[in-house]
Amino acid sequence: MQVAIPLFARFTALDAVGPYEVLQRVPEVEIVFVGHRHGEVRSDNGMLGVTCDARFDEVLRPDVVVVPGGVGTRVLLDDAELLDWLRRVHPHTRFTTSVCTGSLLLAAAGLLDGLTATTHWGAVELLEHLGARYVEQRVVEHLPQRILTSAGVSSGIDMALRLVELLVDTETAQAAQLMIEYDPQPPFDCGSLPKADEAVRNRAAQLRR
Amino acid sequence: MQVAIPLFARFTALDAVGPYEVLQRVPEVEIVFVGHRHGEVRSDNGMLGVTCDARFDEVLRPDVVVVPGGVGTRVLLDDAELLDWLRRVHPHTRFTTSVCTGSLLLAAAGLLDGLTATTHWGAVELLEHLGARYVEQRVVEHLPQRILTSAGVSSGIDMALRLVELLVDTETAQAAQLMIEYDPQPPFDCGSLPKADEAVRNRAAQLRR
Repeated sequence: MQVAIPLFARFTALDAVGPYEVLQRVPEVEIVFVGHRHGEVRSDNGMLGVTCDARFDEVLRPDVVVVPGGVGTRVLLDDAELLDWLRRVHPHTRFTTSVCTGSLLLAAAGLLDGLTATTHWGAVELLEHLGARYVEQRVVEHLPQRILTSAGVSSGIDMALRLVELLVDTETAQAAQLMIEYDPQPPFDCGSLPKADEAVRNRAAQLRR
Repeated sequence: MQVAIPLFARFTALDAVGPYEVLQRVPEVEIVFVGHRHGEVRSDNGMLGVTCDARFDEVLRPDVVVVPGGVGTRVLLDDAELLDWLRRVHPHTRFTTSVCTGSLLLAAAGLLDGLTATTHWGAVELLEHLGARYVEQRVVEHLPQRILTSAGVSSGIDMALRLVELLVDTETAQAAQLMIEYDPQPPFDCGSLPKADEAVRNRAAQLRR
């Protein structure tokens, strides 16, 4: 079972690595990081370099696609090579999925037209502008269309556990959760917009670059 | 403020990228991935390549160290270069920390002698053999000694949020949580050994490679 994770300049690392870490626990899964060219791409702030081992034209029949987000998505909203690749591979995947603003790229490729979907809370308007209907959920599933979208950054871990359940079985997904010891105990409870007070929202606005 | 994340062959990607993703949200933080040599190292299964931008001898005064785990830790338990580096930088750090089996390396360097600490549930005996006293907690803090250890893989995210609180302030840590939308909703509740039934434990044993 091949999982393709597209990478591009200024992607958000955890968007890609969260699902990677869950999915790579499944013995029958092979994961390939795919990009416009072979070699390194750098994360949103440039401080992390990750290798693309394949070009889009070398990965033509992935069983699963997981599109990460990041500020780098914005310049790709009219990138013919990536969007054509998404349109070409999607009819043959078992699931085509996104994390965070990766859903902007699925929408730009036309895959979310008229569907409900989610994204990072900072990209809601843009997602709707691109033809999807935003819903405030951590993971949005369209099983007949074989499309899953997840909210900001860390939500990709939750989505990937569900993906393993869909692809293999519940017990394997639970075992993957145990292997990555995903028993979250965040020290605060302000990980979504409704849970964050105004001071935290204002501080987050300062952190956004 | 410089955060050094050592990488090595067969590291666990989420151990490194979870804390990276939290810490890089803080504007005053610079993160450097450091290794035995410049260039790419591959994750535990080899499917992900990440770049080391600096050698250990080039990063001599990091403010924070975050040591990830992975099966690759085992062959480093007597690696003089890495262990000497940990011993040399620790007296000058604000915090020296580990995720998952990264604590085995802190222990091998002598930094956990007689201290309580945590690690992945599969490495408890080895951690104790190396001189630490295991406690079943997600994050173990020793503020006077400036050492934090966290449990398996995903626990590094929780630890990193606490680190931001210690390094900057609570509001900034909460804003980082909001930015990565860390409002976990795992589809199952078996992310720690006490929560997993025997069938899940057995399946996890099959997944371990």
